[in-house]
Amino acid sequence: MRDEIKVFAPASVTNVGPGFDIMGFALNQPGDEIVLRFTKKPGISISKITGDNGKLPLDPLKNTAGLSLISLAEQLKFDRGIEIEIHKKMGIGSGLGSSAASAVASVFALNEILDRPLSKQQLLQHALKGEELTSGGKPHADNVSACLFGGFVIVRSLSPLDVISIPTHEDLYCTVIYPHVEIKTEEARKILPKQITLQDAVIQWGNVAALVAGLSQGNTDIIKKSLNDIISEPVRSKLIPGYDGIKTAAMEAGAIGANISGSGPSVFALSLTPSNAEIIGEEMQKVVFSYNINSDLYISKINQNGPRVL
Amino acid sequence: MRDEIKVFAPASVTNVGPGFDIMGFALNQPGDEIVLRFTKKPGISISKITGDNGKLPLDPLKNTAGLSLISLAEQLKFDRGIEIEIHKKMGIGSGLGSSAASAVASVFALNEILDRPLSKQQLLQHALKGEELTSGGKPHADNVSACLFGGFVIVRSLSPLDVISIPTHEDLYCTVIYPHVEIKTEEARKILPKQITLQDAVIQWGNVAALVAGLSQGNTDIIKKSLNDIISEPVRSKLIPGYDGIKTAAMEAGAIGANISGSGPSVFALSLTPSNAEIIGEEMQKVVFSYNINSDLYISKINQNGPRVL
Repeated sequence: MRDEIKVFAPASVTNVGPGFDIMGFALNQPGDEIVLRFTKKPGISISKITGDNGKLPLDPLKNTAGLSLISLAEQLKFDRGIEIEIHKKMGIGSGLGSSAASAVASVFALNEILDRPLSKQQLLQHALKGEELTSGGKPHADNVSACLFGGFVIVRSLSPLDVISIPTHEDLYCTVIYPHVEIKTEEARKILPKQITLQDAVIQWGNVAALVAGLSQGNTDIIKKSLNDIISEPVRSKLIPGYDGIKTAAMEAGAIGANISGSGPSVFALSLTPSNAEIIGEEMQKVVFSYNINSDLYISKINQNGPRVL
Repeated sequence: MRDEIKVFAPASVTNVGPGFDIMGFALNQPGDEIVLRFTKKPGISISKITGDNGKLPLDPLKNTAGLSLISLAEQLKFDRGIEIEIHKKMGIGSGLGSSAASAVASVFALNEILDRPLSKQQLLQHALKGEELTSGGKPHADNVSACLFGGFVIVRSLSPLDVISIPTHEDLYCTVIYPHVEIKTEEARKILPKQITLQDAVIQWGNVAALVAGLSQGNTDIIKKSLNDIISEPVRSKLIPGYDGIKTAAMEAGAIGANISGSGPSVFALSLTPSNAEIIGEEMQKVVFSYNINSDLYISKINQNGPRVL
């Protein structure tokens, strides 16, 4: 058995337009990296965190990667000492599932180094344990599921937890722009309506149904028409300076669809070629820059496999 | 050119559990039949209606089949006299898209006898014209779309009208029981909540998304888990005597899922074999009979093609 493993776990885009709180997909980049090694010192510890600007706690009980790992080690009754290094490669609070990526990376790492005692389905609950820290007890499973399984996923139900993968025929590229503004997930949730009209709900689930059909059939016309969100985008987009302009720039540059990633501030756009994805990114970034806001830009194919050993 | 044509247009099941107002599928039986013939007398007339217990008007302007035909003839600038016979083969107000079947049959008949000047997509708007009569001006397109295209359909949007077919891999059988009780569509709509919580909406569109994924993948486990409706079934089922017992009987007899067809009173159940579909039907009918209510029972494969020439 190896004594050390290094893994990568991908960023993820959730909500995906109409699929508020139930859909997500994984990216090939960015993604977090974790080094896990066995130590003589018993227990689980975090030896180092990079790329977090000092924002994340080293205490494993307060860290998503740490807490997920503790949960998994307990189930496996694994009592050797474990030390992890966390290398954050994406902004915390970017809307790209940063905490989910670290949580998935840590449980994936231990499971891989032990030659996969558990299935991904079984790992899911442990990765979710870490997410409880960021959401005050009731974790959303969309980022963790997309990150762990790769591809497009539907979280049909949280209790019992039921995640369904959507095999997608088409080669899809995703452009993500992360404008450096802060949006608290909690705040982005608070501004959502508690009640919606049945009429609006029907429009939304018509689009959700069509989006799943479009993805399943690899039909970009259907994806384009259905990538609308009339529930959360209208209110959440107000927290992102220049959002309408960013989206318009993406669509005019040829995107199949564009919307907020998670609760923002990142914005994603789908397209069919890497060159189109690049152009879309440039145009989006110009708009963000015109607001005097710095940004990170990521171009990536849809990640089909989830985390991987490096 | 022939002078006469006889066509069949299928009954349809709509809502399909979570897909309230946006989903539907067509049956191989029952279905309405229409005979269309050219006459020397100018204009469009209805010469005969059978199977309606005298409920339907012969005035073509007040009859869904008549009004749809008038709309189509106008677009085609067709000025020969047309006479139709309508043979109803399903209950009016059964929740099986009776008016949609007659409307689709009439426009399909004229289009066929004229060697298909229009596509089905183009026929759709004319068939919908007739549906306006039954819904007070704002027609729902789910029955008409399922009846015309066959298979499973999603009505993504009413304006602009956008209907998406879901190719289904699996051979599915449908059992439909129509208990002879009267439910007015208008009343069944009035008892629906005008507002729903965002939380409930998310549960519903999680199930809709999963149902479309399950149908697209031919995965009956997913279909089974997702065929739930927490919005309309809880209120509408109260209008159907013994509904809970009917549904339980279907599920215990091996159904993949069961729910209200349209706004009821018909109840449908899906299964994988004709023999299972028969058993499910017998069990459902026993429950309905225990309430001293007569019923019609239909066993059918999913209709994949819509209407046909007889």
